[in-house]
Amino acid sequence: MTRPHDAAILELKNLLGPKGWSMERDVLETHNREARGKFEGHADIILFPASTDEVAKAVAICAAHAIAIVPQGGNTGRCGGAVAGQDQVLLNLKRMNRITEIDARDFTATVEAGAILKTIQDAAEEHDLLFPLSLGAEGSCQIGGNLATNAGGLNVIRYGNARDLVLGLEVVLPDGSIWNGLSKLRKDNSGYDLRDLFIGAEGTLGIITKATLKLFPHPKHIATAWVAVPSPEAALDLLALARRTTGDAIAAFELMCGFAHDMSVTHLPNLTRPLASQTDWHVLIELTSSRPTDDLQSLLTDLLGDAMEGELARDATLAQSDAQRKNLWAIREGIPEAQGFEGGSIKHDVSVPVSKVPDLLTRGMAAARDLIPGIRPCPFGHVGDGNIHFNFTQPLDMDKADYLAHWENLNRVIHDIVAGLGGSISAEHGIGQLKRDELAHYASAEKLKLLRAVKAAIDPDNRLNPGKVV
Amino acid sequence: MTRPHDAAILELKNLLGPKGWSMERDVLETHNREARGKFEGHADIILFPASTDEVAKAVAICAAHAIAIVPQGGNTGRCGGAVAGQDQVLLNLKRMNRITEIDARDFTATVEAGAILKTIQDAAEEHDLLFPLSLGAEGSCQIGGNLATNAGGLNVIRYGNARDLVLGLEVVLPDGSIWNGLSKLRKDNSGYDLRDLFIGAEGTLGIITKATLKLFPHPKHIATAWVAVPSPEAALDLLALARRTTGDAIAAFELMCGFAHDMSVTHLPNLTRPLASQTDWHVLIELTSSRPTDDLQSLLTDLLGDAMEGELARDATLAQSDAQRKNLWAIREGIPEAQGFEGGSIKHDVSVPVSKVPDLLTRGMAAARDLIPGIRPCPFGHVGDGNIHFNFTQPLDMDKADYLAHWENLNRVIHDIVAGLGGSISAEHGIGQLKRDELAHYASAEKLKLLRAVKAAIDPDNRLNPGKVV
Repeated sequence: MTRPHDAAILELKNLLGPKGWSMERDVLETHNREARGKFEGHADIILFPASTDEVAKAVAICAAHAIAIVPQGGNTGRCGGAVAGQDQVLLNLKRMNRITEIDARDFTATVEAGAILKTIQDAAEEHDLLFPLSLGAEGSCQIGGNLATNAGGLNVIRYGNARDLVLGLEVVLPDGSIWNGLSKLRKDNSGYDLRDLFIGAEGTLGIITKATLKLFPHPKHIATAWVAVPSPEAALDLLALARRTTGDAIAAFELMCGFAHDMSVTHLPNLTRPLASQTDWHVLIELTSSRPTDDLQSLLTDLLGDAMEGELARDATLAQSDAQRKNLWAIREGIPEAQGFEGGSIKHDVSVPVSKVPDLLTRGMAAARDLIPGIRPCPFGHVGDGNIHFNFTQPLDMDKADYLAHWENLNRVIHDIVAGLGGSISAEHGIGQLKRDELAHYASAEKLKLLRAVKAAIDPDNRLNPGKVV
Repeated sequence: MTRPHDAAILELKNLLGPKGWSMERDVLETHNREARGKFEGHADIILFPASTDEVAKAVAICAAHAIAIVPQGGNTGRCGGAVAGQDQVLLNLKRMNRITEIDARDFTATVEAGAILKTIQDAAEEHDLLFPLSLGAEGSCQIGGNLATNAGGLNVIRYGNARDLVLGLEVVLPDGSIWNGLSKLRKDNSGYDLRDLFIGAEGTLGIITKATLKLFPHPKHIATAWVAVPSPEAALDLLALARRTTGDAIAAFELMCGFAHDMSVTHLPNLTRPLASQTDWHVLIELTSSRPTDDLQSLLTDLLGDAMEGELARDATLAQSDAQRKNLWAIREGIPEAQGFEGGSIKHDVSVPVSKVPDLLTRGMAAARDLIPGIRPCPFGHVGDGNIHFNFTQPLDMDKADYLAHWENLNRVIHDIVAGLGGSISAEHGIGQLKRDELAHYASAEKLKLLRAVKAAIDPDNRLNPGKVV
C-alpha cells in the first residue's frame, strides 16, 4: 500500500487549517480502532472539516489526487464500515455538530452530521418533543453515522428505523459537488428517491453532511411490564393482541430467553428479578402516549389480564415506579455485558418476518447444538421488528479461543436458516466489511447487479469508502 | 413514428395467448385515453400479462426487438405517466389482481400489482385490519400504479405516503430479469435501498409486479369535526396543538378556503352547511383510535375548547352520527366537482414545509390576482402534510378558453413561489410527462445529474417508460 502523497496532504492541510486535520499517533489510534476490535485501520491522516464547504473541497482534492476517502462518525459501528487503509484518508464529521434548528410547528430538527444522537434527543426534549431514535451508543454515536447505517434500536416498532425519521439530507458527492436535499417536505414526488439511496449506503455513495429529522410529541405517560410467556409463539400472539388493543401505543416489545435474563440478574449489580417464577421466555413491553390525560397502566393491566386468560402469559408485573421501570430495562440492556461473564460469545444481527421468529429460534438453536454440543444459545432482541440478536455463549467446558474459532461456521449455519426464512443477515448494524462477502453470498444475481450498477453510477471511480457494502 | 414490427407482435401474442393482448379499437381507446384528457396515447397494442413470468418474458421480447414499454395500472394518474406512443407497447397489469395473502400475525398483505386499492382495503378489513392508503380513485386505481407514483391521499399525516406502507417489492427489470425483493422484513440493512428506488419511479426503472404491504389495527373509534379558523396560521397552530394533545391520533387534517366550502355546499346536492357563520378558512379534523375502549369525542371536544380559548378557532361542530360525518367529508371531497360549476380552473399539486403554508397562500393568491385580475383562488388540501391543491377558478366574466390559456403562465408564477419556499412542484401526483420539464427547470444540476445517472444505470437503453420523469 502507498500513502497519500505529500502534495495532496499539503493541499488538505491548507484547506482545513490546524484544527482541521491530525497526523498525531494517539488521535489516529483512537480513530483507527473500532470498538469490538475486529477491524483496525491504518490511516496516516484524519481530517476534521468544520463545514459542508470544507468537506466538499476536501473530497474534491482527494478526487483530483485519486485518493479514497473513508467517512467516519462516532465510530461506534462494529462492521468495519469506518475503517481506513494506509492509502486512504479518514474524514471525521465531529466538528460539524451543530443543531441548526428545532421547528416546533414543523416538528423538525435540522442538524449537522456530527451531532451526537443524545444531544439531538435532549434538544428536542427542551421543546417538549421527541426524537425517537434510541440505541446503546446514543451518548457518543453521531447522527450522520446513524443515517449512513440506517440504525435501528429500541423504538423501531413505534417510530420506524432511522430511514423513517428523515425528511431531508445534504450530501457531498464523490466529485466534491453538494446535493442539497435538505428538505422539510412531508410529500415530494419530484423524481427518484435519492434520500433513501444515501441512507444506509454507509458512506459509499456520498458523505451525509446535514439532515432534517422528524420530531414527535413527547410521551407524557409510560407503562412498562415484564411478562413470563410460555413460548416465542405466545410472545408473537401477545404482540398482535397488544397492537390491536392499545391503538399501536407499543413503544418497545423485547423478547429474551431465560438464560439471558438469568445472566443479567446474576452477574450485574443491583438488579432485582422481576418475577419469582422461572421461565424459558421473557417479554418486556412498554406503552407510551403523548396524550396529556391517559391511563396506560389500566390499558396494560387489561392487556395482561387478557393475555393470562388466553394463555399467552404465565405471570406478569407492571413497573409501579420509575425505579422499577429502570430495573426492567437494565436487565434487558445488560444482557450483552452479562454475557461476558460466561466466556466467549458468537453473535448474529439477523431479522426474519415477525411470524417466523419461532421457526428461527427452534431451528437455529437445534443447528447450533448439533454443530457445537454444549453451546448455550442466548437469543434476545426486538421481536416486534423480527430482529433477533441471536447470540450464542460458549459451552462451559470449552476454551474461549477454541470456541471463537467456530465463528464463521456458526454464522454460515445461522445465516442459511435466516435466508431460508426470507430473512436478512444484517438487520440493524449494517454491512461494512464484516458482512460484505456474506451479502454477496446470499443476494440474488439480480440484486447484486443492481447494487453494483448504483455504486458505479454514483461513484464511478470508487473513491468513497471503497471495499464496504458492495 | 414507426410501429412495433410484426415479428415482435407475433412473439408477444404467442407468449400471452388470446386473453393476454388486444389490438381492438375500443380497448385501445379506453387505455390510451387519460382521465383529465390532457394526454392521449397512440399504442396499437396493449398487453395483459397474467403472471410475473409473462411480464418478464414480454419485457425480454420487447428488449430483444428494441421496443419501449409503457406500464399501466388503473390509468387514473393525470400526468401523462401511463401514456404510450405508436412505436411503444402498452402493458397493463389488471389481470394480475390477486391478493395472495393477508397475514394477521405479521400485519402484512401480499398482493399482485393489478389489485384494485379498494379490494385490498376490503380484504384487510375482513381481518379487522387497515390498509390506510386512501384516495379519490381507490375504486379503480391499482396498487402497482399507487406505488409507482408514491401516491399520497387522505391519511398521510397518520400513516405516511404509499412509500411508507411497503415492506417488499417484486420488480421486472428492463432486461426482463426479475428482482425478488418481496420481503416481509421490518428491518433489513443488506445493501442499498432498492425498494424505495422503484417506488415513485413511475415505471421508468422497472415494472412492479407484486408488493408486500403493511397493515394496521383497524380503527374502532372515529371523531370528526368541522372548524372555522381565523387564518391558515391558526390552522397550523391548531394542528400542532392537536398533535400534542391527541397522541398523534390525527388521521386527517384538511384546510379549505371559504370559496371552496361555499361552492361545495351550493352546487352539490344534499349537503348541509356545518356551521351557520361565514368564515374565510375551514378545517376538517378527524381522529381515529384502534383501542377497543376510547373516548375520542371527549378528546376532540377538549381540543376544540382549548382552540377556542386560544383563538385558534372561531366556531366548531362535532359530527354526532355517521351521516353527519359523511356530510363533512362530502363537502371536502366534492370541491373538485363543485369547481366545475364555476368555469375553468387551473390546478397545482404542490407542497411546502408545513410552517410555510400561510406564506404560500398569501403570496400565491396575491401573485395570481396580479397576473389575472378577478381570478378566484380555491386552495384546499392536506395541510397537515404541507400539501395544498392550489387551484384557481376563472374570473366570473372571462371566457373559459381564454382563462385556461394562462395555465402555464400561472404554473410558472406559483411554482416559482413554491420553489422559493423550499417546496415541491409535485407533491402526490407524480411527474409523468406533465411536469418533466418543470422538474428539470427547478431541480439543481446535482440532483438532475443523480437522477439521470440512476436511470442510465438501471435502464441503460431507455426501454421502460421513456420520456417520463427524467
